[in-house]
Amino acid sequence: LTRRQLIESIFAKKSYLCVGLDTDIRQLPAGFEHSPAAVLQFNRAIIDATAPYCVAYKINSAFYEALGEEGWKVMRQTMEYIPPGLMIIADAKRGDIGNTSALYARAFFEHLKAHAITVAPYMGEDSVRPFLAYKDKWVVLLAHTSNPGSADFQLIESKTTHRKLYEEVMLKAMTWASPEQLMFVVGATQASRIKTIRELAPDYFFLVPGVGAQGGNLDEVSNLAITRDCGLLVNASRSILYASSAADFAAAAAHAARSIQQQMAAHLQRLA
Amino acid sequence: LTRRQLIESIFAKKSYLCVGLDTDIRQLPAGFEHSPAAVLQFNRAIIDATAPYCVAYKINSAFYEALGEEGWKVMRQTMEYIPPGLMIIADAKRGDIGNTSALYARAFFEHLKAHAITVAPYMGEDSVRPFLAYKDKWVVLLAHTSNPGSADFQLIESKTTHRKLYEEVMLKAMTWASPEQLMFVVGATQASRIKTIRELAPDYFFLVPGVGAQGGNLDEVSNLAITRDCGLLVNASRSILYASSAADFAAAAAHAARSIQQQMAAHLQRLA
Repeated sequence: LTRRQLIESIFAKKSYLCVGLDTDIRQLPAGFEHSPAAVLQFNRAIIDATAPYCVAYKINSAFYEALGEEGWKVMRQTMEYIPPGLMIIADAKRGDIGNTSALYARAFFEHLKAHAITVAPYMGEDSVRPFLAYKDKWVVLLAHTSNPGSADFQLIESKTTHRKLYEEVMLKAMTWASPEQLMFVVGATQASRIKTIRELAPDYFFLVPGVGAQGGNLDEVSNLAITRDCGLLVNASRSILYASSAADFAAAAAHAARSIQQQMAAHLQRLA
Repeated sequence: LTRRQLIESIFAKKSYLCVGLDTDIRQLPAGFEHSPAAVLQFNRAIIDATAPYCVAYKINSAFYEALGEEGWKVMRQTMEYIPPGLMIIADAKRGDIGNTSALYARAFFEHLKAHAITVAPYMGEDSVRPFLAYKDKWVVLLAHTSNPGSADFQLIESKTTHRKLYEEVMLKAMTWASPEQLMFVVGATQASRIKTIRELAPDYFFLVPGVGAQGGNLDEVSNLAITRDCGLLVNASRSILYASSAADFAAAAAHAARSIQQQMAAHLQRLA
């Protein structure tokens, strides 16, 4: 999925919503059994219900690995079920020395057929390069995350450059890859900061978690960081997946996704 | 596996060798088919051959994930085959927001029954805490890794503290967990630095990759960083797994492991 295709999809669907399939086997709606097969059944219903309103799905590998090898299979089957044209982001936060990252790339890009993978930057360039070797695939690099612990190391200021660690990560990564292959994870919970982050990387897409359950504000993020190409994928997980815990869960998920999409349409409208 | 048990095992076996089961399906010896089942068969032969000479096995998740759900099953079966008393380290380099890290912990500690997992520190405290909630399990936190890219971010110096990022990571992590539950990944390729790292964390175990194929020197690392409790687990992977590509691969692996163990015995002897 190229950057051009992603942008066309965003403007055609009037949406930059990414639905996070962080499906917790313990939180399936009434009537579902607690089995990996039921997780797949639930995911398929959520995808059917939300595909008209989103441009991407983010699959959080932890939720599937916690179910063992059956979970890994459900992760693959979930990705296979996503309709063509929608971006599949493996939220796996991998990163290791070169030859090992190459195997993670094989796992997520070749075996699971994801279009993109989230990568942790701590180990540096050779931990990221093997993912970039797939020219039609994306790296979504952790920059400034939305969790409380993001302040522990990401905000450390360099003695030499006076820039924060997450800024160093972004500046260095932009020398490794163009906006055609690289996005950044930028948390929405500290919206004051998102404006300076946008100035640092005007042409790169940001994957923004933390809108909804994690407390970010969609309008604020959009006002501060939307670009002419949109440049945003905003993720919502729990507010859609668990919009209802009853038999109407799919309709409720569609309603929740549509409501976010309509808010996004207004922001995209203003770019025209 | 407690710290006390690990130390007793090290002094009983006169070894602080960790064998890395980074088994590449493309590098199996002559006579093996290229299948996940053959990887398991190879791993079992390597474990049988090397268990007398090591105290831990490190299973690199990337090599198994690259094989899909069958690979995940082989990872579980490999861990199940490791004899009691030997430490099982899942080299998975995970780390995510709290509720997601909790699921990775469940995957590796409960489903796969590993004793330890490698964790990436970039997302900070709440990404590490859920692993530490398992009081009888270990976090092996990335500090200063052995790959070329380690210089990209890990050596950035803080404007405030004048310490490098990896030192900040270690100092902060030591406030989260005692030496009973926390180890650090410290690469061997820059031995000059390992002495200062040891001074920073005198009581914590270091997992040292990079001896052998990655170019570290076992004697140098041992001289600079061994403690009264040993405090070291030194990993070797390729030099043992692929000591021979012929039918005698298991005997060759045993020989390679024994030769490292004897070198280690001399260092432990000197502590007495």
